[in-house]
Amino acid sequence: MNKPRNHQPRLIRWMLLFLAIGLMGLAESGSIAAAQSTSSKDAPTSNWGKPQDPNQAEPFWGEHQGGIATKPQHFMYFAAFDLTANSREDVIKLLKAWTAAAARMSEGETAQPLESGLKLAVTPAAPKGGDADETPDTGPRAADTGEVLGMPPSRLTITFGFGAGLFLIDGKDRFGLAARRPEALVDMPNFGSIDQMVKEHTGGDLAIQVCAEDPQVAFHAVRQLARIAEGVAQIRWVQTGYRPIAGDRHLLGFSAEEKTPGMNAPQAQAIWAGKEGQDWMRGGSYVVVRRIRFALEHWDQMPQAYQESAVGEMKHPSKPVGQVQTNGKSSSDNVVTEDNTPPHLAIVIPGRDAMLRRSYSYNDGVNFTTERWPPWRQGLEYDAGMFFVCFQRDPRTGFIAVFRELASHDSRLNQFWTHVGGGLFAVPPGAKQGEYIGQGLFESH
Amino acid sequence: MNKPRNHQPRLIRWMLLFLAIGLMGLAESGSIAAAQSTSSKDAPTSNWGKPQDPNQAEPFWGEHQGGIATKPQHFMYFAAFDLTANSREDVIKLLKAWTAAAARMSEGETAQPLESGLKLAVTPAAPKGGDADETPDTGPRAADTGEVLGMPPSRLTITFGFGAGLFLIDGKDRFGLAARRPEALVDMPNFGSIDQMVKEHTGGDLAIQVCAEDPQVAFHAVRQLARIAEGVAQIRWVQTGYRPIAGDRHLLGFSAEEKTPGMNAPQAQAIWAGKEGQDWMRGGSYVVVRRIRFALEHWDQMPQAYQESAVGEMKHPSKPVGQVQTNGKSSSDNVVTEDNTPPHLAIVIPGRDAMLRRSYSYNDGVNFTTERWPPWRQGLEYDAGMFFVCFQRDPRTGFIAVFRELASHDSRLNQFWTHVGGGLFAVPPGAKQGEYIGQGLFESH
Repeated sequence: MNKPRNHQPRLIRWMLLFLAIGLMGLAESGSIAAAQSTSSKDAPTSNWGKPQDPNQAEPFWGEHQGGIATKPQHFMYFAAFDLTANSREDVIKLLKAWTAAAARMSEGETAQPLESGLKLAVTPAAPKGGDADETPDTGPRAADTGEVLGMPPSRLTITFGFGAGLFLIDGKDRFGLAARRPEALVDMPNFGSIDQMVKEHTGGDLAIQVCAEDPQVAFHAVRQLARIAEGVAQIRWVQTGYRPIAGDRHLLGFSAEEKTPGMNAPQAQAIWAGKEGQDWMRGGSYVVVRRIRFALEHWDQMPQAYQESAVGEMKHPSKPVGQVQTNGKSSSDNVVTEDNTPPHLAIVIPGRDAMLRRSYSYNDGVNFTTERWPPWRQGLEYDAGMFFVCFQRDPRTGFIAVFRELASHDSRLNQFWTHVGGGLFAVPPGAKQGEYIGQGLFESH
Repeated sequence: MNKPRNHQPRLIRWMLLFLAIGLMGLAESGSIAAAQSTSSKDAPTSNWGKPQDPNQAEPFWGEHQGGIATKPQHFMYFAAFDLTANSREDVIKLLKAWTAAAARMSEGETAQPLESGLKLAVTPAAPKGGDADETPDTGPRAADTGEVLGMPPSRLTITFGFGAGLFLIDGKDRFGLAARRPEALVDMPNFGSIDQMVKEHTGGDLAIQVCAEDPQVAFHAVRQLARIAEGVAQIRWVQTGYRPIAGDRHLLGFSAEEKTPGMNAPQAQAIWAGKEGQDWMRGGSYVVVRRIRFALEHWDQMPQAYQESAVGEMKHPSKPVGQVQTNGKSSSDNVVTEDNTPPHLAIVIPGRDAMLRRSYSYNDGVNFTTERWPPWRQGLEYDAGMFFVCFQRDPRTGFIAVFRELASHDSRLNQFWTHVGGGLFAVPPGAKQGEYIGQGLFESH
């Protein structure tokens, strides 16, 4: 929404009518949609409108990491980390400790055994300028912060990803891994005016996607993993997200699921990396996450018929055709656009099956904005929208291909959202008990 | 946490040991606790660990507003508004429209009838410098933003409150209501170093507490009410909150509920305003909300024994006495403090029954902080903690009395939290069908 606009009324009107259809394409690509997989182990169906049982546990060990083909949980806490250590051994130590803690927490256990003398998996670095005497010597810090003690596993999954910085950062091969960077872990191109990534909310050497049926269970996991990482890695940015408990709509007000029959059938071969790249990534995937801020105040000013035309579907599909009154006129299922701009759905549907979408809505309250566009609000605006998450075998044929189309042609919806953060991470395959996540990257050659 | 600290190790150690107990008092006052009421209509018990049925609706009309004695829902969206209109009639019009929309949404309906020609209850002001021709003339904007269409009521409650600014602001009696300001709607005093209220997150002329069993249902309600208010009132600050789905602990890791037998029995006469003040407030209440940021990174550095001593209870009450290993020593239920500083619970329990607590945890991700205290973190810290909510007949004998004690004596816990926003609002009584919330203030004399 940062591009300067000519305020001549006719031009703006033209832009509204002709650009919006293009934007809806992106919206759909980013829509919170049911994730399905044809993976042999998991055959998830949508959980929209179907609250899950918090007593259930999701398996941690396996061919693939959890949190990908897993039926989407209702809450998410995503955290990107920067590595502060420069030793390969420290990174391995961290991944071992993270793997062990993640496996325990997935079963509803504390991150580390409470009765083990409360030892830490990774000893924290001494505080800068600190003095050990300053902490009361009544014992070591707790092995777990305790806010989920007594609570069930809540379908917790913890999914680890590796950013480009693990392989090469500022031209430096810190950990001797540069030669093993997958080709598919590309440097993300810029997609134009709707792609305004804020550096402080983008990238990271490591990423953790935590999903659960309880927001406290999700945050607890990140909090423990961040404690374990002290002295080796630190948080770079985080994002919380949710899915409605008993519904299927994202914050633009449209259903995320019932758009096309095809959107629920991503093929396993589109998700899991195979023989084509680095051996250590076989059975892994690549995740693209994008914090897409919706201009809700603007969107909410638009006539419903305009919104429906831009998206390419009715807002109230449950109503029979002809019953929905917009501006006193009956509408039909076949929304007529006033020009030849394709609606959002027409743009995104062709590329949809090249990825598995697993997005969440986010709602970070309000913050200050000055808008140079009607209604010219100067003050607080919602910081809410979608945390778009998609997994794919290769982002070049997945997200990047679809988003290029959207950025160019979804010109209506592109006025109502901006990509303001996110990243691309290589998600290594799962681990068997006794292994650690990412072991293939560090140990097999 | 903003007071300058002497970095001499011994002094800091002393502070840690002796101040922390005092702080725990505040923590308890702010703890996420079960809310109960002896109100004749409602006899709620705790919902901790008991997910609620999203299909249930809570009554909107009644002697008292909902969202007070109502059994706490799991999600909250709180919004404070500033009035931008200066006419008493506009405020009345707004309250009428808000009442009608709130009653509809409580039953799972759209904010306004979709088939009513999509008319707005309050006509929005023309955008500054705007031109009607700039909006596509394909119809008026939608009557409802639509993101909960087809979803159940989810136990939605909407509770309206009036801030001091409705009565007198900058010495100006904008609406002719100054003489009707209740005595109990005091100007909140400052409580010392832990009371660092950020102006942009404090106060407001009007406030809306929205609670529901679905975060999308809660946000939807605020979004509709803010749209209805356009031209009359605008959002000043907001806060989201949650309670764990299947647990009873706040983010310090302690149970919020099982502390004392007395904390679950607030008396109706401590909550509802009676004959003592303004007539129009009879059957209403006063709500104090406080955004209490927890210094989780600091707290998590503390030994568990220290945390337990500061709070005044064991972290794992489910374990038999003597089984909890902290630093290799068995602990007992009677935590021994190394000094005479009372633990948090000892400070707060005497004042607890003077209020009905209905707090939520909040988790707003991370933001940048420079800490001048071990571990001297400079970088990102969690912006998480508790959105403390308490209702009482008179805040002078409720929150203010308890918080004074805590601010002075809860010196251990006061190192680990800071009050950074909130407000005090007069919550008028409920309305009967045909009335509007706050009618008594404007119409009876």
